[in-house]
Amino acid sequence: MNIVLLSGGSGKRLWPLSNDIRSKQFIKIFKRPETEADAEGEHKTHYESMVQRVYRQIKTVDKDAEVTIATSKSQVSTIRNQLGNSVGISVEPCRRDTFPAIVLVTAYLHYIRGVSLDEAVVVCPVDPYVNDDYFEALKRLWELAQSGTANLVLMGIDPTYPSEKYGYIIPKDKQQVSKVDTFKEKPDAETAQKYIDAGGLWNGGVFAYKLRYVLDRAHQLIDFTNYADLLNKYEGLKKISFDYAVVEHENDIAVLRFAGEWKDLGTWNTLTEAMEEKAVGDVRFNDTCSNVHAINELGVPILLMGLKDVVVSASPEGILVSDKEQSSYIKPYVDAIKKQVMFAEKSWGSYRVIDIEENSMTVKVTLKPGHRMNYHSHEKRDEVWTVISGTGKTIVDGMVQPVKQGDVVTMAIGCKHTVIAGKQGLQLIEVQLGKDITVSDKKKFEMPQ
Amino acid sequence: MNIVLLSGGSGKRLWPLSNDIRSKQFIKIFKRPETEADAEGEHKTHYESMVQRVYRQIKTVDKDAEVTIATSKSQVSTIRNQLGNSVGISVEPCRRDTFPAIVLVTAYLHYIRGVSLDEAVVVCPVDPYVNDDYFEALKRLWELAQSGTANLVLMGIDPTYPSEKYGYIIPKDKQQVSKVDTFKEKPDAETAQKYIDAGGLWNGGVFAYKLRYVLDRAHQLIDFTNYADLLNKYEGLKKISFDYAVVEHENDIAVLRFAGEWKDLGTWNTLTEAMEEKAVGDVRFNDTCSNVHAINELGVPILLMGLKDVVVSASPEGILVSDKEQSSYIKPYVDAIKKQVMFAEKSWGSYRVIDIEENSMTVKVTLKPGHRMNYHSHEKRDEVWTVISGTGKTIVDGMVQPVKQGDVVTMAIGCKHTVIAGKQGLQLIEVQLGKDITVSDKKKFEMPQ
Repeated sequence: MNIVLLSGGSGKRLWPLSNDIRSKQFIKIFKRPETEADAEGEHKTHYESMVQRVYRQIKTVDKDAEVTIATSKSQVSTIRNQLGNSVGISVEPCRRDTFPAIVLVTAYLHYIRGVSLDEAVVVCPVDPYVNDDYFEALKRLWELAQSGTANLVLMGIDPTYPSEKYGYIIPKDKQQVSKVDTFKEKPDAETAQKYIDAGGLWNGGVFAYKLRYVLDRAHQLIDFTNYADLLNKYEGLKKISFDYAVVEHENDIAVLRFAGEWKDLGTWNTLTEAMEEKAVGDVRFNDTCSNVHAINELGVPILLMGLKDVVVSASPEGILVSDKEQSSYIKPYVDAIKKQVMFAEKSWGSYRVIDIEENSMTVKVTLKPGHRMNYHSHEKRDEVWTVISGTGKTIVDGMVQPVKQGDVVTMAIGCKHTVIAGKQGLQLIEVQLGKDITVSDKKKFEMPQ
Repeated sequence: MNIVLLSGGSGKRLWPLSNDIRSKQFIKIFKRPETEADAEGEHKTHYESMVQRVYRQIKTVDKDAEVTIATSKSQVSTIRNQLGNSVGISVEPCRRDTFPAIVLVTAYLHYIRGVSLDEAVVVCPVDPYVNDDYFEALKRLWELAQSGTANLVLMGIDPTYPSEKYGYIIPKDKQQVSKVDTFKEKPDAETAQKYIDAGGLWNGGVFAYKLRYVLDRAHQLIDFTNYADLLNKYEGLKKISFDYAVVEHENDIAVLRFAGEWKDLGTWNTLTEAMEEKAVGDVRFNDTCSNVHAINELGVPILLMGLKDVVVSASPEGILVSDKEQSSYIKPYVDAIKKQVMFAEKSWGSYRVIDIEENSMTVKVTLKPGHRMNYHSHEKRDEVWTVISGTGKTIVDGMVQPVKQGDVVTMAIGCKHTVIAGKQGLQLIEVQLGKDITVSDKKKFEMPQ
């Protein structure tokens, strides 16, 4: 099957583990099932992120599944780091609501990946916390679209309570697969109960269609010839939702009923329910703690005593201590916190801000073996590198020099520079010096030959 | 009056704010009363430590009080930073129980500070959380000793409940000042109630005597001539408590009853009761928190939601989140944490560890204006300094050089080095490189002429 995972969101609700660069789907807090390689001690980490978990589950259900992630530029490095190179990535140049996004990834599948117009694709959020039966259902959804059951086939989740959080799908009958009668917006609890009594299902944001169907509709609304052309025009596209542009105009819609377990891990409360261990990282509990979960990404210990129904989360960006139920109200508090991205995962490795002063910033840079950062310069700051581990070479204004632990390289304003890690990788402490230090002060250049 | 403050303890119970270097009495968490200078905006910090608070209170009650701190070497820099140069400091070369410690400071007062043998002194712990009336009582205690009421005059605190935490003093009568009948060790609650019914008072560890009295007893038990001689012999002295060596042999003891407020701030629970604000540092609360106190010494925000009766404390050493009552059981958990001193206050400024790797450590060093670190070398590590603010000069193997922001100095193993801050102070990032990096790898030298 072809499957598209929609990977968006800034994940403010999971602060401080998510930030402007790392969305919630990339946080590694789920215990990965042991593999043979683990038994042989080949792996150090036993945790996987939501996106890794979902990808693994898809491959378990259908090892030939073609997976494509529809995302923004800022997530590409992390996706490559976490899923490798076999996954397809369709990159939105900017955010333009769901219809342009789904058209873009559909065009990507057809024009770039060569998927036939007569083939179906399933579109699904990147972060459902579910069992393998959910992906079996996705496969069935794909087969229904492929066999022409309807122009659009949705997944309807059997509701477990009259939730106000979801839209409802009202099917025409009670069969496993049914035509859709109507859609209902997110209701209040009382109305939700009426929908449920009428056989309504939660709309989980999952649907399948043949490429031709969406591209035909796209050509009616957008003037473009192929993927490259669409990409060029993307910034100028009207913001319009898939529901408004497609679903509301379609009479031939089917729904597949899914009655398995399904969790939307959008808040700390629901996320910790899915954790198999009570802690990730250096966390100590005394024996009077109950229903406490903690994630510690800092290098120092956390000690928890006498707490009940609490989540603790610590990262280089900040520390959250919250009653689990209260944690769902986090967003306005996170909005009020002044943002300074303190860590980031890049294709070449990672960086972490370790000190901030008025006219300087100190960063630890970790390069993966053989990788390098961009060849670049700054206009408002000098930099000093001190290599703390590994070997490699630096290029400074075109001059190449081997470096090892203890070597120091100084780069004045305007000087072009990069560092390339050797076989063991390389770590360095970068001291940035100047007024107005910002990540945007960066000019990139071609690597010198 | 002459007053000696006994300043000891590692303060494990107040982890992570106290560490092997910073004891609880030096943590700045008490709101200082506003002064005229504050009103004019001259002061930035409105917090004071326990030792600063006690010192301020003593001076309020008796502006001519001669204050001496009896302490260990590791606290001298911090005491000078917090109390300045007018306070006397008697330094124990090593820990030898309370009798040697009290003899040492008594000898210091007589032989070094020239206090007459016929003058009295009050000895008191450095960390009672009390009002000014307590220090009025201390003054009265001193006057009682001075006027020869008894060889030893104790303070007895009117008990508010049958505590198992304190020893009890049973007076002969119910007068404000009474002779002492007997002393009782820390009892169980039932026995404590009996002592209280018999008029017993808590022993708060405060007493007054004339110097001659303690020095006479000292000469009976220890062979020494003067302060310098005692200091030389200190390490060889027998460990013996003041109670065992002096109090048990003395029949002429009086007790002064004190009925004012008195708190022993030894645990997070009692400490937070004394905090006038619910937070120190960048801490945000949602409106469902109640009776929550937090201290944040990290540079990132802490967000607290839906908590009740909880204390949160974060420092570069770790993070504590505890139910207030449970926090008194912290000690074994702190004992189990591997110690790495992550920050320290020195006479010349401060340092903070900002990164630790297997074969490197990165430290931020802040030098006060005009101050310098020791001239020293290391046997197992190279170091690289990058100046991030201020100006000054470095001396490396005798060679003096001016430095400013952005300058880099590299020091190989064995190389002698120091840095002297200019008028604005100086900050630098120090990268330490080598195996087995420890604070003990340090050889000190005389400054070159």
